[in-house]
Amino acid sequence: MDFGYDEDASKIQDLLKRFIKQRVLPLNGEWHRRVAGGDYPLDLLEPLKRQAREDGLWNLFLPDLRADQPGTAMSTLDYAPLAEIMGRLPWAAEVFNCSAPDSGNMELLQRFADDAQRHRWLTPLLEGEIRSCFAMSEPDVASSDATNIATTFTRDGDDYLIDGRKWFITGAAHPNCRFAIVLGRDDQAAEQLPHRRHSMLIVPMDAPGLEVERNIPVMQHRAPEGHCELVFRKVRVPVADRLGGAGEGFAMAQARLGPGRVHHCMRTLGQCELALEMMCERALERRTFGKPLSEFDNVKDWIAESRLEIDQARLLVLQAAWRIDRFGNQAARVDVSAIKVVAARLQTRVLDRAIQVFGAMGLTPDTPLAALWTWGRAMRFLDGPDEVHLRTVARDELGKARDQRGHTAAYFTL
Amino acid sequence: MDFGYDEDASKIQDLLKRFIKQRVLPLNGEWHRRVAGGDYPLDLLEPLKRQAREDGLWNLFLPDLRADQPGTAMSTLDYAPLAEIMGRLPWAAEVFNCSAPDSGNMELLQRFADDAQRHRWLTPLLEGEIRSCFAMSEPDVASSDATNIATTFTRDGDDYLIDGRKWFITGAAHPNCRFAIVLGRDDQAAEQLPHRRHSMLIVPMDAPGLEVERNIPVMQHRAPEGHCELVFRKVRVPVADRLGGAGEGFAMAQARLGPGRVHHCMRTLGQCELALEMMCERALERRTFGKPLSEFDNVKDWIAESRLEIDQARLLVLQAAWRIDRFGNQAARVDVSAIKVVAARLQTRVLDRAIQVFGAMGLTPDTPLAALWTWGRAMRFLDGPDEVHLRTVARDELGKARDQRGHTAAYFTL
Amino acid sequence: MDFGYDEDASKIQDLLKRFIKQRVLPLNGEWHRRVAGGDYPLDLLEPLKRQAREDGLWNLFLPDLRADQPGTAMSTLDYAPLAEIMGRLPWAAEVFNCSAPDSGNMELLQRFADDAQRHRWLTPLLEGEIRSCFAMSEPDVASSDATNIATTFTRDGDDYLIDGRKWFITGAAHPNCRFAIVLGRDDQAAEQLPHRRHSMLIVPMDAPGLEVERNIPVMQHRAPEGHCELVFRKVRVPVADRLGGAGEGFAMAQARLGPGRVHHCMRTLGQCELALEMMCERALERRTFGKPLSEFDNVKDWIAESRLEIDQARLLVLQAAWRIDRFGNQAARVDVSAIKVVAARLQTRVLDRAIQVFGAMGLTPDTPLAALWTWGRAMRFLDGPDEVHLRTVARDELGKARDQRGHTAAYFTL
Amino acid sequence: MDFGYDEDASKIQDLLKRFIKQRVLPLNGEWHRRVAGGDYPLDLLEPLKRQAREDGLWNLFLPDLRADQPGTAMSTLDYAPLAEIMGRLPWAAEVFNCSAPDSGNMELLQRFADDAQRHRWLTPLLEGEIRSCFAMSEPDVASSDATNIATTFTRDGDDYLIDGRKWFITGAAHPNCRFAIVLGRDDQAAEQLPHRRHSMLIVPMDAPGLEVERNIPVMQHRAPEGHCELVFRKVRVPVADRLGGAGEGFAMAQARLGPGRVHHCMRTLGQCELALEMMCERALERRTFGKPLSEFDNVKDWIAESRLEIDQARLLVLQAAWRIDRFGNQAARVDVSAIKVVAARLQTRVLDRAIQVFGAMGLTPDTPLAALWTWGRAMRFLDGPDEVHLRTVARDELGKARDQRGHTAAYFTL
Repeated sequence: MDFGYDEDASKIQDLLKRFIKQRVLPLNGEWHRRVAGGDYPLDLLEPLKRQAREDGLWNLFLPDLRADQPGTAMSTLDYAPLAEIMGRLPWAAEVFNCSAPDSGNMELLQRFADDAQRHRWLTPLLEGEIRSCFAMSEPDVASSDATNIATTFTRDGDDYLIDGRKWFITGAAHPNCRFAIVLGRDDQAAEQLPHRRHSMLIVPMDAPGLEVERNIPVMQHRAPEGHCELVFRKVRVPVADRLGGAGEGFAMAQARLGPGRVHHCMRTLGQCELALEMMCERALERRTFGKPLSEFDNVKDWIAESRLEIDQARLLVLQAAWRIDRFGNQAARVDVSAIKVVAARLQTRVLDRAIQVFGAMGLTPDTPLAALWTWGRAMRFLDGPDEVHLRTVARDELGKARDQRGHTAAYFTL
Repeated sequence: MDFGYDEDASKIQDLLKRFIKQRVLPLNGEWHRRVAGGDYPLDLLEPLKRQAREDGLWNLFLPDLRADQPGTAMSTLDYAPLAEIMGRLPWAAEVFNCSAPDSGNMELLQRFADDAQRHRWLTPLLEGEIRSCFAMSEPDVASSDATNIATTFTRDGDDYLIDGRKWFITGAAHPNCRFAIVLGRDDQAAEQLPHRRHSMLIVPMDAPGLEVERNIPVMQHRAPEGHCELVFRKVRVPVADRLGGAGEGFAMAQARLGPGRVHHCMRTLGQCELALEMMCERALERRTFGKPLSEFDNVKDWIAESRLEIDQARLLVLQAAWRIDRFGNQAARVDVSAIKVVAARLQTRVLDRAIQVFGAMGLTPDTPLAALWTWGRAMRFLDGPDEVHLRTVARDELGKARDQRGHTAAYFTL
Repeated sequence: MDFGYDEDASKIQDLLKRFIKQRVLPLNGEWHRRVAGGDYPLDLLEPLKRQAREDGLWNLFLPDLRADQPGTAMSTLDYAPLAEIMGRLPWAAEVFNCSAPDSGNMELLQRFADDAQRHRWLTPLLEGEIRSCFAMSEPDVASSDATNIATTFTRDGDDYLIDGRKWFITGAAHPNCRFAIVLGRDDQAAEQLPHRRHSMLIVPMDAPGLEVERNIPVMQHRAPEGHCELVFRKVRVPVADRLGGAGEGFAMAQARLGPGRVHHCMRTLGQCELALEMMCERALERRTFGKPLSEFDNVKDWIAESRLEIDQARLLVLQAAWRIDRFGNQAARVDVSAIKVVAARLQTRVLDRAIQVFGAMGLTPDTPLAALWTWGRAMRFLDGPDEVHLRTVARDELGKARDQRGHTAAYFTL
Repeated sequence: MDFGYDEDASKIQDLLKRFIKQRVLPLNGEWHRRVAGGDYPLDLLEPLKRQAREDGLWNLFLPDLRADQPGTAMSTLDYAPLAEIMGRLPWAAEVFNCSAPDSGNMELLQRFADDAQRHRWLTPLLEGEIRSCFAMSEPDVASSDATNIATTFTRDGDDYLIDGRKWFITGAAHPNCRFAIVLGRDDQAAEQLPHRRHSMLIVPMDAPGLEVERNIPVMQHRAPEGHCELVFRKVRVPVADRLGGAGEGFAMAQARLGPGRVHHCMRTLGQCELALEMMCERALERRTFGKPLSEFDNVKDWIAESRLEIDQARLLVLQAAWRIDRFGNQAARVDVSAIKVVAARLQTRVLDRAIQVFGAMGLTPDTPLAALWTWGRAMRFLDGPDEVHLRTVARDELGKARDQRGHTAAYFTL
């Protein structure tokens, strides 16, 4: 057991921090002004992306990146602190071609795409030339129970016809978004068990019948890359664009979840750290009743609680990453449910404290706090609500208890 | 970074579990009956102690145990899971000569005792022939601010005279308790700064003027080994029985705290694990409104929350242990404050849930739950209340923020 | 709507406070010493009871007390603050013949007993000559689902034979306890619906076959009047001692619950008030780090939160009392579930804060805090666990929503 | 003590509910569409206002409304449930001329304005012809410590010159907003104690030098009536437009606070009720894992907890209203601090649960939930942050304890 990172991993963490400090943060003000004006500032991004790639800070999230693919392969555990660092700034990950949902899509394509699909979709993603989205959630289906997903894939000759409505599709408003991976109910698998009925199709964003209806504000925050509502009306896609076999949609989606949630959680923790740092700075500066806020015991308690909670959450996430690397996604399934709940709830708790320390200013768009809080609140639904993941944890725990029924009897005192 | 124990550490964990299961737990019922009858069942203990020593399960807590001292030296990190295992049963640690406060006293003596003191007190402790206590807390002094400790050590020729009152002195009612290490205000150091005024004296329990006035019930639980109130009335002790120099009492007490708190926390986590296991078993067995409790979502939530919290807390404690081993007690000071708060609060939270799942039975002495809860509640004061430790964490965090003032400005959006 | 008590009600509150201050509290130290020594100090009680009756402070809890019965009839709402005042001291209610479970038993007998039963059992209870208990809970039945109560009443000629085991039977260890009202499954009602199968029998405590097996410690606290485990082995009772008809046990038990829970809750709030007062006094006196605890913001927060919570809870309980008086027990059923949950949880929360302010002393038996906490913890099971009552509240709320389905649509913004 | 409303008060509650249901709610969709398009739909409002006035639903908040003033005078207690009903819809209060901050401004003017001021400003407000704002908060001053307010009023002949910056000025973006009551540091009172240095000036919105710089988004929500940032640059105002005497600003502001906070709290509770109703409806409709959400125990718990908390909070607010009516604002000062904390925290708690029940839809602007949550979050700062009000409550409690020092000693057991 060892709680220290080895030298290589530490070195790349420092490199990334320095890159962000020296090259990315100086552009942050401009970025936000441009975005507030309705722009997506690709011209700021592109030079940064080129430099990041040169510096070896590219596609860091993909453990099985091959030698002929651009970027630096890292384990989930070694990538985790990099995700935390990127997470502090909403637009940083894209600089390093590590944005969700592209990262997850690249994982999927790396594992399940055939050669043609790899060539057409994976390569430009890895190169950072295009972006993509992943269309799973639907407005009429509780995301806790994804087997109800109702978008239909109807076979018509060598094509499928897609009909349905998806929402909260992250990235669909990005100017470079070129395709969606869509999960739907495949009429070729209608006879299967509920979790074997869905397939995945790769759909170009400009396919006729596919409309991005709106970029949904999330607690009134409108992300520049979008959390969009998409409508599919008889969208025609060749069977060759199916990823994997008919009915294998959920199995593939599962495979995608483990590392992706680790990334989400670590980015979230980066945001919690930033909020804690901001809270401390503000507490040192802001005075009331003749002393700085940092000398009020309840403010100190908020700071200390945040530190305790963040440190514990990070260790849990890192342990999950270690298990994924060591034992695989499936073995780490319960760990991944656990971290998702922990990180999402932590975010709104820490951010709420930071907002309170900032006073009314914490509610304004002048600090990143309001937007960060919102991301945490959304994370409590992303990939299924907290309650579903808590249930997964409980079921596992009860299963272990069932296996050793009677085990605790010897500890009774009567 | 590695979250797995190496093979040696794992092996001794298994050995300890097996020993407790096969040799200790079968005597648990008899132990409790005898204790309930007012007895301290040394005759049950002694054969177990001999066997444990033979099996290499002896004095496991002392990293700097020397080759000529009995037992197996382990790092704080490697010992931690053993403390967790022992913690499940209130009388297990003594079997392995790993009980508090002896373990802390042995650490103190190992580091600070002179040869005569080592021979007279440390050797029989290490052999498990005697037990001891550590007398610091006083009824009239807030334990959050120990520099106010008021027991006086008055120099009188080659002796000190001790006057004062101590309470919550764990172990003082044990039939084998032979000496106390007492912290008091040394008139030889009266001119010093507040934290340089106290010394430690080694006092035989049968010293004239030393009275064990009562074994204080803690939330009505009367520990067989005692949390006692001691009165010192002109107790005469030779200067030679002072441990370390005049005024070095707090410095030595600090040295004692790090590993001791790790042990406390890990034992506490062992109790949380036991409570969680019991909660699960009960939930599987107990039925209401036509289904087992384990099928109620709120019971499942309690189980899942407990699992998440225990796992996070354990990682935090193990990380603190790792830091103690790697960087020393002083460097891990804030970590040690952090784990103390986390573990103590967790204990009452998890135990409370377990009691609720057990229903009224959880309040009775028929299960270990009521007694375990009590230990958790007491831990919220042990070695200083939560609030003091939270403040330590906050002060550290604010110090870091002060060092990099202005650091977060680049993240603002305005 | 009026939040003030009228003059008469206020006057009796003052009278009761003065009586307790002048006559009861001066004996409190002696009471506790005698009880700690295993005594039940009836000789302290009897003169106080005589005086209370003379002063009109007798049987205050019974709204339908008749002119020929001793005492002062008060509404549930007017009695509520008196229960709060009595609740501050564990032995006060008995002085005024207002102790549970006698008060509930007197209600039951007043409403359902026939003349012979009234003469034999109700009269001496109202006179304060004897005490009684109410035997419902069973160790093997979740108290959340009382229809499973398994004690059997088997008809045998003109008698019933009782077999079963009851526990947590409050008052059964009181030296004057003369009878139990027992709830059991009546073989004369076996064909009925689950909640129509149980009857109540009045059983003298000296009935052959009835054994008080133990006085169960609750979180190690052994109440002098007892929370006892009772065994019934073929206890023979004439059919004439059945209270009400065969199968009417639950209906009668329901009738007993409303006011009794108001009393419990108000006593509990009295204890919370006492704890808050003690917390404040201690915070003003105890100093650490150079200032009184009362100047630490987190201590102030605990005090303020306690005040907010107690005041809110009291209003909810008083409103429930008002509804009972105005609309009857049945109409106030959900209110009564609500207050039970609120008061029980509040007690442990406020007491926990008070204990923390007292430091280690709060764990000792030297203050009433440890014992008061325990009562709060037990209340979370008394008359059914919190969870059952929360469900009652939720079901009611969902029922209302179902009745006006669609009602909120007009508030949507889309 | 009586928890029921009398017939008159109940009748006007019914009248108001019916008016909103029949006349206001049918326009709600159009209102939101228009507002989302940047419009302030006065043409929807004006006919409703005329009708409301005809129906006697006008200026209901002003207990001392005179016979020659339009509207219906009600006590604070009788108005409270009307505020709750209006609070459910963000634009309802204006229909009845009961919007903040006009209501508070009318109170101020009613009590402190001279005839000229009453004629010029109060009369058109009471008639509903104009609207107004109240400018107190400043970006550089912690609102917890208002005596630091830094906007300056400098005497210049018969005028004052105003310089300063105000923010979160509600209502300043309303198309009918005609004047602001501004709190500033009066150089005519510079020698006074800190809370006697500020005055109030009435400033027309079109005064030269007064600029509404922006309508600040609050957690990204931009209120149509605005929470604005105002800059005053040498704004010239005649001394005759000072409300009250020099240095009396805080005393008058205090007078304004009591009823205003009751109104805020009751509106907030109306929103909590709405959220609870929506949560129940959604739980009945939405299915996952084969059953409606309403059958999950944790969803039921959220519903029940919300009901318990709302009911308790409402009683506390109503009690405060009763005390204001009975004993005056000053006597109810602590009560008013208490309700502010309770209501604000409750709002975000209940709304958070409702959002969780709605799933991702709860984050969208398609329901009122996101906007309602935001209002609750802002309320935790409005009129001073929670922490300041908790401190007021604690100080009061400690004061009472100090007055009866020693009082609890008789309850100790030792």
